[in-house]
Amino acid sequence: MSPLPDLPEDDLFGADNLPYGVFSTADDPGHRRVGVRYGGWVLDAGAAARALGSPHATLLAAPDLGPLMAAGHAVWQSVRADLRLWFTSPAHQETIAPLLFALDSEKDPVTLHLPFEVADYVDFYASEHHASNVGRMFRPDGEPLTPNWKHLPIGYHGRAGTVQVSGTPVIRPQGQRKPPHEDAPLFSPSRRLDIEAEVGFVVGTPTAPGERVALADYRAHVFGVCLVNDWSARDIQAWEYVPLGPFLGKSFATSVSAWVTPLAALETAAVAPPERTHPLLPYLDDKGTADGLDLRLEVRLNGHVIAEPPFSAMYWTAAQQLAHMTVNGATLRTGDLFASGTVSGPEPGQRGCLLELTWGGRDPLRLPDGERTFLEDGDEVVITAWAPGPEGRRVGLGEVTGTVTPAR
Amino acid sequence: MSPLPDLPEDDLFGADNLPYGVFSTADDPGHRRVGVRYGGWVLDAGAAARALGSPHATLLAAPDLGPLMAAGHAVWQSVRADLRLWFTSPAHQETIAPLLFALDSEKDPVTLHLPFEVADYVDFYASEHHASNVGRMFRPDGEPLTPNWKHLPIGYHGRAGTVQVSGTPVIRPQGQRKPPHEDAPLFSPSRRLDIEAEVGFVVGTPTAPGERVALADYRAHVFGVCLVNDWSARDIQAWEYVPLGPFLGKSFATSVSAWVTPLAALETAAVAPPERTHPLLPYLDDKGTADGLDLRLEVRLNGHVIAEPPFSAMYWTAAQQLAHMTVNGATLRTGDLFASGTVSGPEPGQRGCLLELTWGGRDPLRLPDGERTFLEDGDEVVITAWAPGPEGRRVGLGEVTGTVTPAR
Repeated sequence: MSPLPDLPEDDLFGADNLPYGVFSTADDPGHRRVGVRYGGWVLDAGAAARALGSPHATLLAAPDLGPLMAAGHAVWQSVRADLRLWFTSPAHQETIAPLLFALDSEKDPVTLHLPFEVADYVDFYASEHHASNVGRMFRPDGEPLTPNWKHLPIGYHGRAGTVQVSGTPVIRPQGQRKPPHEDAPLFSPSRRLDIEAEVGFVVGTPTAPGERVALADYRAHVFGVCLVNDWSARDIQAWEYVPLGPFLGKSFATSVSAWVTPLAALETAAVAPPERTHPLLPYLDDKGTADGLDLRLEVRLNGHVIAEPPFSAMYWTAAQQLAHMTVNGATLRTGDLFASGTVSGPEPGQRGCLLELTWGGRDPLRLPDGERTFLEDGDEVVITAWAPGPEGRRVGLGEVTGTVTPAR
Repeated sequence: MSPLPDLPEDDLFGADNLPYGVFSTADDPGHRRVGVRYGGWVLDAGAAARALGSPHATLLAAPDLGPLMAAGHAVWQSVRADLRLWFTSPAHQETIAPLLFALDSEKDPVTLHLPFEVADYVDFYASEHHASNVGRMFRPDGEPLTPNWKHLPIGYHGRAGTVQVSGTPVIRPQGQRKPPHEDAPLFSPSRRLDIEAEVGFVVGTPTAPGERVALADYRAHVFGVCLVNDWSARDIQAWEYVPLGPFLGKSFATSVSAWVTPLAALETAAVAPPERTHPLLPYLDDKGTADGLDLRLEVRLNGHVIAEPPFSAMYWTAAQQLAHMTVNGATLRTGDLFASGTVSGPEPGQRGCLLELTWGGRDPLRLPDGERTFLEDGDEVVITAWAPGPEGRRVGLGEVTGTVTPAR
């Protein structure tokens, strides 16, 4: 019998997965350490590495994922190979078993922290379904997509300083909004507070000024994947965003999952991206690749499933986003985070934000505890996802949660 | 006779100014230290503080301005009072004189570094003249200003990771551009590489989530002022920016001056902002304040003055920008940088970018060494500024320089 806790065969966090996070315990709250999730437990990775004489013990004993992320692809592979061995070979299981902490322990509660310091945060707009729906709502007489949309992955910089870990409350933002019948803007708490269910990509390996990252090199730079809720105040955004883009409608909070899933754990989720309807410039041309990812998202509002967005439907891949983001010579830093934009599929139940799900507030969601157009104070949103793993198993992407608290 | 170097009465960097930077010397290149500029010299501030028993020696012995910036307004005042004493009282001058390094030394060359780690970088669009000129060029049949422009300071997040210190070369970016007569975008080095002469504000004191910074509290949060050149590829920007704003057209490089001038050194430059043509919401209403700054910028291209933009003409003040940026509850971090946007005045010779100076390339500048619409490889741009100081003297804001190198 294994000395490790028994996991069900279909556990989302088995030895195929092994995502990274940062945790502390109530007994030692100032001691932040790199953790690796296994079922409902987290392994103190630095302590395990020391106990087993791993050459990566220093990286894993850091207070966040930064040093490991900066160490580069060859080290990521080596550390992951070690971890898989520790969790699967009986000789090593003995050593690591005492270094596992139950995530739901009442005796010594575990706190999960933001797993890395966010350098720059970029948000893309990569779902054709989302961009088309938004275009239809905002420009009913024009083409749903702007002329550039099929030629480049549109993106913009968000506020890195307000990226927060899953579970952190979201304070309702205040700001200017201008209803159509008013001559001048009003000031109030946002009345159209929304979510955006997204997938985030975490950069490990930096680049030098002027260096470009080719499509084929994306796996050498991206350390892993997290889930993102890009909270959005639609009324603030609508009034402010012309001509320089979203600003205060987004900058109050962006939540990310506490777990970063290594790209290597998602190899079984690789899929071809959607067919390209327009020829792409060479630096974006991904013909014949399988750079898409078959991630199945689920969005719950106060416990009720309101959407199941399929990431495989995204038009632009993370590899294309990275190639585009660096094609002008802009550098990458360890800790850069780029997110996909709202994940929406072709079906109404696959839309990743309330703006689309309620068609701009016109068609309220009917939930067992009442109707919803946009978020009310006290609402809790939980986004989860899984991907196909080896031999019919599944790989979980953790969760990103947040509860709305009243404006201050 | 003072043991300090003699400065001309009208020196821009006398004891009224005392801006902060970070330097190293060729003899000890790994030793980055906080410096204070005095004429053509830089004082090793940490060494001076130790020698004089200052309680701020630890802050000033740091490798960048971060700890001093984070220490807050009362400490900034105390450190500045100390510095002014050291530079003006004969007893202290004796002690600090040996700790001055000549900025132009050939024997032990001084290198100036990025003076603080940039947290988030926000760029505003605060000149009515600039925004109107751009609107006239891009939307000749519409109103020059968008409907929101007079109600809020429009801004967006830029790329913090590519903010670089004055003197760093600027590699010409490549990217997509779509000439009007083409059906699809082309890929090439930018053909419309431009400057934007701006003023930057450096945040010292952070805020908590949900906290707002009132207009009157701006001086408690802003540590100082620098000069900014927000390099812009107009062809890349024009094709990409609808609907989410500028991205790769700006993200390749933003240059800042090596010197951060304390706000306290600019008290004599305080002026009332331009008359407000639209009523402002209370959080932006600055009636009766003197939150404007009378800074006189000068832009030189290959040594020739091409513009003299007056910062006093800016419609939105830094205090309003800070109030707006935090009104939604977004936090500030030590090291946040927000820039004014292109500084342009009402006169043709007061426009802070080539887009305006050449009216979109239609009217080339005639310089002694040839015509210019946009920047060519090898071009050097230098932006300087000064402000009125006490008793008719002037306070200099250092300079931000950059030379364009060919695309890689």
